[in-house]
Amino acid sequence: MSATDIKKRVKKTGQQPGTLTYTGSMQDIVPTITVASYNNQEFSQYINTKINIQEIKALDNHVTWIHVHGLQNIEIVQEIAVQYKLHKLTVEDILNVSQRSKIESFDDYIFVTLKILTWDTKLNQVNTEQLSIVVGNKFIISFTESPCTAFDMVRERLQTGYGVNMLENGSDYLAYRLMDTTIDQYFVVLEKIGDRIEQIEENIILNPTQKNARDIFQLKHKLLILRKAIWPIREEISHLLQSDQKFITAFTRLYLRDLYDHVIQAIDTVETLRDMVSSIMDIYLSLVTNKMNEVMKVLTIISTIFIPITFITSLYGMNFKYMPELESHYGYPIALAFMGAITGGMILFFRRKKWI
Amino acid sequence: MSATDIKKRVKKTGQQPGTLTYTGSMQDIVPTITVASYNNQEFSQYINTKINIQEIKALDNHVTWIHVHGLQNIEIVQEIAVQYKLHKLTVEDILNVSQRSKIESFDDYIFVTLKILTWDTKLNQVNTEQLSIVVGNKFIISFTESPCTAFDMVRERLQTGYGVNMLENGSDYLAYRLMDTTIDQYFVVLEKIGDRIEQIEENIILNPTQKNARDIFQLKHKLLILRKAIWPIREEISHLLQSDQKFITAFTRLYLRDLYDHVIQAIDTVETLRDMVSSIMDIYLSLVTNKMNEVMKVLTIISTIFIPITFITSLYGMNFKYMPELESHYGYPIALAFMGAITGGMILFFRRKKWI
Amino acid sequence: MSATDIKKRVKKTGQQPGTLTYTGSMQDIVPTITVASYNNQEFSQYINTKINIQEIKALDNHVTWIHVHGLQNIEIVQEIAVQYKLHKLTVEDILNVSQRSKIESFDDYIFVTLKILTWDTKLNQVNTEQLSIVVGNKFIISFTESPCTAFDMVRERLQTGYGVNMLENGSDYLAYRLMDTTIDQYFVVLEKIGDRIEQIEENIILNPTQKNARDIFQLKHKLLILRKAIWPIREEISHLLQSDQKFITAFTRLYLRDLYDHVIQAIDTVETLRDMVSSIMDIYLSLVTNKMNEVMKVLTIISTIFIPITFITSLYGMNFKYMPELESHYGYPIALAFMGAITGGMILFFRRKKWI
Amino acid sequence: MSATDIKKRVKKTGQQPGTLTYTGSMQDIVPTITVASYNNQEFSQYINTKINIQEIKALDNHVTWIHVHGLQNIEIVQEIAVQYKLHKLTVEDILNVSQRSKIESFDDYIFVTLKILTWDTKLNQVNTEQLSIVVGNKFIISFTESPCTAFDMVRERLQTGYGVNMLENGSDYLAYRLMDTTIDQYFVVLEKIGDRIEQIEENIILNPTQKNARDIFQLKHKLLILRKAIWPIREEISHLLQSDQKFITAFTRLYLRDLYDHVIQAIDTVETLRDMVSSIMDIYLSLVTNKMNEVMKVLTIISTIFIPITFITSLYGMNFKYMPELESHYGYPIALAFMGAITGGMILFFRRKKWI
Amino acid sequence: MSATDIKKRVKKTGQQPGTLTYTGSMQDIVPTITVASYNNQEFSQYINTKINIQEIKALDNHVTWIHVHGLQNIEIVQEIAVQYKLHKLTVEDILNVSQRSKIESFDDYIFVTLKILTWDTKLNQVNTEQLSIVVGNKFIISFTESPCTAFDMVRERLQTGYGVNMLENGSDYLAYRLMDTTIDQYFVVLEKIGDRIEQIEENIILNPTQKNARDIFQLKHKLLILRKAIWPIREEISHLLQSDQKFITAFTRLYLRDLYDHVIQAIDTVETLRDMVSSIMDIYLSLVTNKMNEVMKVLTIISTIFIPITFITSLYGMNFKYMPELESHYGYPIALAFMGAITGGMILFFRRKKWI
Repeated sequence: MSATDIKKRVKKTGQQPGTLTYTGSMQDIVPTITVASYNNQEFSQYINTKINIQEIKALDNHVTWIHVHGLQNIEIVQEIAVQYKLHKLTVEDILNVSQRSKIESFDDYIFVTLKILTWDTKLNQVNTEQLSIVVGNKFIISFTESPCTAFDMVRERLQTGYGVNMLENGSDYLAYRLMDTTIDQYFVVLEKIGDRIEQIEENIILNPTQKNARDIFQLKHKLLILRKAIWPIREEISHLLQSDQKFITAFTRLYLRDLYDHVIQAIDTVETLRDMVSSIMDIYLSLVTNKMNEVMKVLTIISTIFIPITFITSLYGMNFKYMPELESHYGYPIALAFMGAITGGMILFFRRKKWI
Repeated sequence: MSATDIKKRVKKTGQQPGTLTYTGSMQDIVPTITVASYNNQEFSQYINTKINIQEIKALDNHVTWIHVHGLQNIEIVQEIAVQYKLHKLTVEDILNVSQRSKIESFDDYIFVTLKILTWDTKLNQVNTEQLSIVVGNKFIISFTESPCTAFDMVRERLQTGYGVNMLENGSDYLAYRLMDTTIDQYFVVLEKIGDRIEQIEENIILNPTQKNARDIFQLKHKLLILRKAIWPIREEISHLLQSDQKFITAFTRLYLRDLYDHVIQAIDTVETLRDMVSSIMDIYLSLVTNKMNEVMKVLTIISTIFIPITFITSLYGMNFKYMPELESHYGYPIALAFMGAITGGMILFFRRKKWI
Repeated sequence: MSATDIKKRVKKTGQQPGTLTYTGSMQDIVPTITVASYNNQEFSQYINTKINIQEIKALDNHVTWIHVHGLQNIEIVQEIAVQYKLHKLTVEDILNVSQRSKIESFDDYIFVTLKILTWDTKLNQVNTEQLSIVVGNKFIISFTESPCTAFDMVRERLQTGYGVNMLENGSDYLAYRLMDTTIDQYFVVLEKIGDRIEQIEENIILNPTQKNARDIFQLKHKLLILRKAIWPIREEISHLLQSDQKFITAFTRLYLRDLYDHVIQAIDTVETLRDMVSSIMDIYLSLVTNKMNEVMKVLTIISTIFIPITFITSLYGMNFKYMPELESHYGYPIALAFMGAITGGMILFFRRKKWI
Repeated sequence: MSATDIKKRVKKTGQQPGTLTYTGSMQDIVPTITVASYNNQEFSQYINTKINIQEIKALDNHVTWIHVHGLQNIEIVQEIAVQYKLHKLTVEDILNVSQRSKIESFDDYIFVTLKILTWDTKLNQVNTEQLSIVVGNKFIISFTESPCTAFDMVRERLQTGYGVNMLENGSDYLAYRLMDTTIDQYFVVLEKIGDRIEQIEENIILNPTQKNARDIFQLKHKLLILRKAIWPIREEISHLLQSDQKFITAFTRLYLRDLYDHVIQAIDTVETLRDMVSSIMDIYLSLVTNKMNEVMKVLTIISTIFIPITFITSLYGMNFKYMPELESHYGYPIALAFMGAITGGMILFFRRKKWI
Repeated sequence: MSATDIKKRVKKTGQQPGTLTYTGSMQDIVPTITVASYNNQEFSQYINTKINIQEIKALDNHVTWIHVHGLQNIEIVQEIAVQYKLHKLTVEDILNVSQRSKIESFDDYIFVTLKILTWDTKLNQVNTEQLSIVVGNKFIISFTESPCTAFDMVRERLQTGYGVNMLENGSDYLAYRLMDTTIDQYFVVLEKIGDRIEQIEENIILNPTQKNARDIFQLKHKLLILRKAIWPIREEISHLLQSDQKFITAFTRLYLRDLYDHVIQAIDTVETLRDMVSSIMDIYLSLVTNKMNEVMKVLTIISTIFIPITFITSLYGMNFKYMPELESHYGYPIALAFMGAITGGMILFFRRKKWI
């Protein structure tokens, strides 16, 4: 959650609860509806931007999957809500995309929200987007802010009937597949951040600069966002596993348990990356301190060698009338020798102190 | 809770439990009573500073909402307490405004206190005020220390019957609306602090000064106040959800669950802001250390270049009678060349060390 | 718990469990017994240093409150133990005043210990003392190490029958009153520490010295003591609320719930003060670092301006025979001008670096 | 879990759940199957790289132990899975070796994964490898990535019938033995790290260098890996103890309880080593700071002694026409004496400050 | 647990579970058996190094207490194990003295291990030793590595029948007494460490040296050992209290509850001492920083006063032919006065900065 998210939330403040507004920033995406319908034998699919919701007729023994991307056209969401008897609060949560991930059980359906995380390779940053899923008996409705290619692949597999026969299983298994697809993308983002951390570490060991410090703080902030996105999912799946909704089969529960392990692993990875970032910060600070030490040592060595011998030269630069040493023929070579001895002594002293 | 709050609490110490005193600082606000009465068809309202409590007659099937702002006139609170059979401890808690937010169930009513947070744009600080709500069957009594415009808007909506028809729902839904209104304001305050944090971050990156450090500590302190105010509300709503009071309907419970999520989000936001403040403090310290390093480097570079060559000049400033170099015609240019060579060597050394 | 407390505990070590010794340091206080007896109509009271315990006859329907201060006369405690059938372990706990606060249920009574905290204004420190309360049906026995004026006030109110009619309620309500009185004093101590913190903060901002650091560490230590004293009470009251002793009435339970909230508030306050102390420590460190920076800057500015120009003066102090500049009529003014230019350039450089 | 592990995980992403791939790095190990079969009287054993799984016939009342090392030949794992009716998710988990250790109960078997930790003496690092164990009634199947000599010893003891008669106990006891053998190796790795810590500590006290700091960070990282590997095992054994699978006997449960204690001890050891590493880091930093202090002191002592006396020599190096001191016969010795006095005074001052 | 303990543990690794080895370091202590037998009237006792275990005949209604010190003669432990039907794992745990403290219930007995802590006044360190107690109905067997004088005192009290009549109570009360005696010694060790902390604190305030820092780290390490030793005992006693073994009487349970409080207090004390050690470390660091500041200030003051005035002397040491100031009769006194003015100005500047 960033300062921008807080602002989104504030925009809604002062409004009556129940007023519907899309709080996201992706205002220019054309809302598109994709309807897929399948049973263990058939699969059919329509894509349209102006589909008439009432026309979607659920066939007997078919699972209907409605996917909407683009949320600024509130009417579409409202029509679906009316058709599938969604609670007012559910509609509000679908549109309010800056919320914390959560799961809620209603009489006829389960409502789940997750964050979709993608890595923006141009800006080197993490984009977050909300995915809302309504899972009922024989139907599933999903909402995203922007088009989601990963979901297209799920639909393709439904069509080809590849792998575990998705056609044979109900809406609960499809919901698991959507969540699994979303959570798998987290690892891609985590890998990118892992790579970035290693790269910064190398840079720092070569030459620690103030810019590195700022990079580390930015990584820390990104990991904070990830943590906030992933952490609540653990609880969500745990709730799903304990849910008493009849349409969640024992078959799907096994897969959800596996998904739960993946989320734990994602959380573990985030924590490991956070530990690594902290370590790099420590390395940075220790390198900076060491550099400072080195600077100090050079200053001290130069000063402590030259200050005493400069004193001697200064001594014999005095203009007193009666300075017997000045008259001596060997004064100058003896003074030079003495200064050389001091220098040698100092160097020995520094050697013993292991400064040079 | 600030040092001032501790003092308020202390004033009461030594008194017998049950002695009634208003512990707040807003002593000059004229206590005002606003009574609203409504059922699913009608709405009526009176505002007065000297209303006779006994005259308020609850109409059949009407919800009565009594709102009092200004608490230094203890008699008003006591009269209401007698009329609505409030427990002595409830009255005490209404008047003792420096308490921790809490919820208590009594036989006939639920007593809830929350902090109202407002942002004082003049002084750039957070003001806290206590809101006490007594929710019974068909009646609700709310107490604030100063006039509350947000509540006037709730009353207006009751009158216009806008949105979810508030007139159709009981005192429990109204209580939810008052709490929701109060918690929505938290996000406004959080946004202000978020803006302030970003502004300080920019200032620090431009020029880290001691004043920045003090600003960060003040923000940290403000966030501490917010945290203490928001944290207990989570538990409060959770208690409300599990309450066995009959006048809390399943309808309202759904909305309370939603409110619970908002509070969690507010807590999350506070934690995120705290993390951001910590990061800024770290950036500040790292910038200060870097500046120190730079200062040290300049000193070291200047010193280590000039100290050796000054020694040479000093050497030939000695007044020994027999110094052959001084007699030589090329002594001076050779000395100059030698000093130039030392300077060049030093500069090369610093280049290799990446100091310049 | 301080090092002294550990020693007290050790003194007992090696003895057989069950051996009775007073472990406190207030050895010179004359043990005094105050017996109060009341029902809803009457109140009577005796004070004596040599009361004969067997003579105390509990009147029917009267609550008997025996208060003992001064514990070095073990016989008194033992006589009371025999008369009221107290367990050997209870007697031991009454005399061993360096224990952790705790609550224990026995068949016929509940045994509670708390710390009484008082602020020693002369030495600016917190004094801790143990209060032990034995609450039975119709009797209550309390033990403190030194005279306790706050309890005298409770007794006075019993006599005058002021406020909630204490005379009408049993030993359980009186126990609540004693605990409430004790916990109210915590806030006085907390306020003193709060004042001290603010005072130190002001001193530090004016002039951070090593003494301030030591003051902060002492405050930290005091807050640690308070925390250890207050923390277990939370659990104690929670146990009291869940106790199945019949003589704890529903009436008193309501008040205990209120007391529970006060303890939570005290704990909150301690945590807030600890946070404040940590912040002050951070402010102190940041001020010290800043001061160091300033010192470094002054040194660097003076050095880097004067070292180069001193080199020039030194250069023309050399005694080479053939130095054409020395002969020139304009040598001196040109040298001066050159040195002036260097100084100006340095000052500009420092301006741009924002050092001056 | 390292950055490499995250990458392994990512490779799988985008695949359909259920697609089987070996995610490990040991691609060049020839998969080998070792089949052991025993009851309380007999023991027989076959080793082969191309065993025909269908040929393995479980003899009545015999426990069959199939051990596979080398996982890149997925067919072998799949054949075993078909023969022993393993769930698709189990097969996936066996092949996906970068997972978190876990335990899962299925109808007919329990599936356990652990990390095998070995110390690579050449590279001074910890190698992690996954061990998967499927325990059913009368059979046990174990999978490792590389050959495991510790398991060969277990098999040898089965053959010789040494110690607690393993032949007399079922597959549950054998599973315990495999886990015990694996966990015992953790202590070997922990001892190596303990030795390394002590060695680094000694080096640091002799001469703290930047390399030491890097060594400490590496140790910290290794301990992090160990912690992640060991922590989940605690929960695993606790699940095994509470499992309601009938083939886990009371006899084996006693041994599992003991194993649980060993795991707790391993966790304790890791935490202790982490504490030690932190302490060493603190010692390192404190030594570096001290060294810096010493450098500063030397600089300050030399500078503050010589700067004032050099000023005096410089003073009498001025070329003013009228400087009476210069003419005096005793000027020079007096100046020398004065400079000696300043030096002596300075030395006394530093003595009092305890700098020298 | 130290690195040495890890090594002890490792020695066992690779062995078959069930192989019996004494893992301790006290190899030269002659194993000695002390048998005491008592009922509420009689007490008898034998001490021998070669007692025949089978000869120990438990008299009816007598409690038999067998105490063994010295464990390198494994046969003695094995003989006792056979006689009293101890489980193989119990024997193993008795001999493996580097284990974590634990409690285990078997059918006929409870097995408890604790650490005995003693303070070695010569080496200023904590010695740990394992105490194993097997408590059955009417018998108790205890094992220590070295002779334990505290247990001799328990035996003496049994003989003299002093205090709570130990003779009247069963093996459960004796077990409590042994544990109480052991835990009481913890406070002695804690006091020693408390004294050491105060002493180091004093030293540091007088003169913070690098040696102090090392002392603090050693104390921290000792407290870590203590914490590991004491922490598990809390859980142990809690298990004892909930145990359903019939031979633990309600009478003993009361005393165990008291012991539980003592352990909590010991844990509290350890935590307090840890806090104190942390504070001292902070004080040390703050003192070191302050000393550094002082050094820097002295250097800066001396440098910034003398550098400018040395420049002036150097200026008039130049050998330019035409320097009018040098010819002036008042040149020298004016230069002196000017230098005096600069010095005075500098001193005022430092005063205002509060540096001197």
